[in-house]
Amino acid sequence: MAARALDDLIALLAKLPGLGPRSARRAALHLIKQRETLLRRLAVTLTEAADQVRKCSRCGNLDAADPCWICAAPERDDRQICVVEEVDDLWALERSGVFRGRYHVLGGTLSAIDGYGPQDLGIDRLLARVAADRVSEVILATSATVDGQTTAHYIADRLAPSGVVVTRLAHGLPVGGELNYLDDGTLGAALEARRPVPSTAAERA
Amino acid sequence: MAARALDDLIALLAKLPGLGPRSARRAALHLIKQRETLLRRLAVTLTEAADQVRKCSRCGNLDAADPCWICAAPERDDRQICVVEEVDDLWALERSGVFRGRYHVLGGTLSAIDGYGPQDLGIDRLLARVAADRVSEVILATSATVDGQTTAHYIADRLAPSGVVVTRLAHGLPVGGELNYLDDGTLGAALEARRPVPSTAAERA
Repeated sequence: MAARALDDLIALLAKLPGLGPRSARRAALHLIKQRETLLRRLAVTLTEAADQVRKCSRCGNLDAADPCWICAAPERDDRQICVVEEVDDLWALERSGVFRGRYHVLGGTLSAIDGYGPQDLGIDRLLARVAADRVSEVILATSATVDGQTTAHYIADRLAPSGVVVTRLAHGLPVGGELNYLDDGTLGAALEARRPVPSTAAERA
Repeated sequence: MAARALDDLIALLAKLPGLGPRSARRAALHLIKQRETLLRRLAVTLTEAADQVRKCSRCGNLDAADPCWICAAPERDDRQICVVEEVDDLWALERSGVFRGRYHVLGGTLSAIDGYGPQDLGIDRLLARVAADRVSEVILATSATVDGQTTAHYIADRLAPSGVVVTRLAHGLPVGGELNYLDDGTLGAALEARRPVPSTAAERA
């Protein structure tokens, strides 16, 4: 009933995660109001992204170059590979700035419901990297969900014959988190994985 | 650090209402994963919208045509003009299907903070329409906010000399709303505007 281009735009925006039909309408109006500064720039940038951004054939990261900027960085440690589910998990780890090794992006988790199997996660590619490079540790940084943990166990089993050290992220109290808001599962895991507190008296001695 | 097009895309998506930096990253990844079916289609549709969608010079609605499909519809009632703040308010009223007159879209409210004055709302255009057409009623359907009500009062004052009937939407209990969740202002307004209940006994008689 209104302009077809506007209806199409709202329908496409509503397909983005985090936007429903109502917020898609608001977003479309916002774009129309800022026609040159936002709407046209977004159209150009989307086309650029479609043309330029590709998946790194080595680790699955997204970049304009292949191999990506992380795989190409000579100063990063080849001996550690961190396995993550998605590119935004890689981004989150990079923002934290604590990991200086390489990555393997699965692009999802094993999921019987979604029909997502081992071949979709590039496990063979990961095994080949572990065999070819001088990798000493694979860190499984999948989510602490059922699917994430199932995937981690599957990868650990597949890596076992190679003899590489396989680790996973610690579970515990989030930094800044309050104990009484924590779920039982996390609380149990944090208690089980408790660490000795170094005595300051012993240090002074 | 990653592909510039991807960074730009995330930055632009984060400017949409309803998307923060985090959800903009998720949306960008979602777009990249559906490169042909969503990303390229969105780019094309945005350009189409930028080229085709214009503001109706008569009522302020958005359409590919000027006058818009509502102003052009011969079956709609010229005697009623419904004044709304934004185009999505017009869409909401159209979805309800209860109003068959014409519209006037203000494109905002009077706001000292945003520096939005009467000239920005097309009030003169509204007055000219009331004077020229055979308008018998102007319905002020602005929001029940301070800015919305201020704007409604201002428009009512400006319309007073024309002798047209000026009405506003009723305030009261939302359909499906529970009394004990209602704020005091709405409850007071609903009580004050109470309506007689027709007696079924009188009807039976």
